[in-house]
Amino acid sequence: MAVPARGDHDARRRDVSQAVWEVLAAGGFGGLTLRAVAARMGASTGLLTHYFPSKKALMRYALEVAHEHTQVLDRFPAEGEGLPGLRAALLDVMPLTPEGAARNRVWVSFWDAALGDDELAAAELRRYERWRGMLRPHVDAALRRGQLPADADPDDVVATAAGFGHGLVVQALFDPARFPPQRQVKLVDDFVALLAR
Amino acid sequence: MAVPARGDHDARRRDVSQAVWEVLAAGGFGGLTLRAVAARMGASTGLLTHYFPSKKALMRYALEVAHEHTQVLDRFPAEGEGLPGLRAALLDVMPLTPEGAARNRVWVSFWDAALGDDELAAAELRRYERWRGMLRPHVDAALRRGQLPADADPDDVVATAAGFGHGLVVQALFDPARFPPQRQVKLVDDFVALLAR
Repeated sequence: MAVPARGDHDARRRDVSQAVWEVLAAGGFGGLTLRAVAARMGASTGLLTHYFPSKKALMRYALEVAHEHTQVLDRFPAEGEGLPGLRAALLDVMPLTPEGAARNRVWVSFWDAALGDDELAAAELRRYERWRGMLRPHVDAALRRGQLPADADPDDVVATAAGFGHGLVVQALFDPARFPPQRQVKLVDDFVALLAR
Repeated sequence: MAVPARGDHDARRRDVSQAVWEVLAAGGFGGLTLRAVAARMGASTGLLTHYFPSKKALMRYALEVAHEHTQVLDRFPAEGEGLPGLRAALLDVMPLTPEGAARNRVWVSFWDAALGDDELAAAELRRYERWRGMLRPHVDAALRRGQLPADADPDDVVATAAGFGHGLVVQALFDPARFPPQRQVKLVDDFVALLAR
């Protein structure tokens, strides 16, 4: 048997990544199994065990795939520094589109897996740190520019904004009729205005 | 074989409920299986299938058990109507104690199961409605008493408070070192003060 050309290898890797993402988007981390990924690819479970010798290896890989798919794309350009930047960063994570909803479903589903596993819980802790780290420069800029009360604690403002954002994500995922995109945007706008008051 | 006395039946039912709760507290809805519940009870999986003919039946029952365990206990008496009541209602759901953390782990883990199943998603939607319904009278009272800006939309204030609360719960579950109980209380206090500003 010929050694696969380099291009074949990369193509197969893209196939695996795509199948893992589709399984995650369809059923979350709770529905992630070698069998489901193999079925998506039209491949055998045996082939998949070549890539992922254990469920844990598959989970680790899926975490990377989910991370790639949730890189912030700067979809909401901020109209200014400080609070406008915070507003844009919050809107970036909201389930305003079907793709945004799929991304959020995947992450919310990851919390169950992560709460039961020390390694995954540590990964989730770091993910939160990263997200708060993305909000932080906007809060610092808002303080510098006098857009927030001078005695506001930036760590607390960031934790409150991160909490508000994720809590709104969860409500919107379960009740899209009551939380259509325009209401999500209004709630984010009102929240940012509240911080500034 | 004699028909079990009524007391035996109730005792067995309590055993099942307790075992289901222990499995949920240990591994969330993701770890809920007939086998795990049977192992907790020291019973056979066969006995459990008598109670739960399907995984779905077990999930439905576990949802009831989780609901019973998360009834609000009025642990935080409000020092006044309106915003103090809202503060107390938010503190009631925070993971301030090991029991509070266990309750929250169970509910956060349910989101994964619920996102993949229409019936469970509908149950989660109703649970959110119930929780927002519990916050609502406090927001209405705060408006009547002039503790909130007169033009505040009560539905929006409730959704923002519910979002902030659950988002803080998730951060605290994954990062208890950074979100010890006293910081959770401070963040709730600051959030309520923000609404009042």
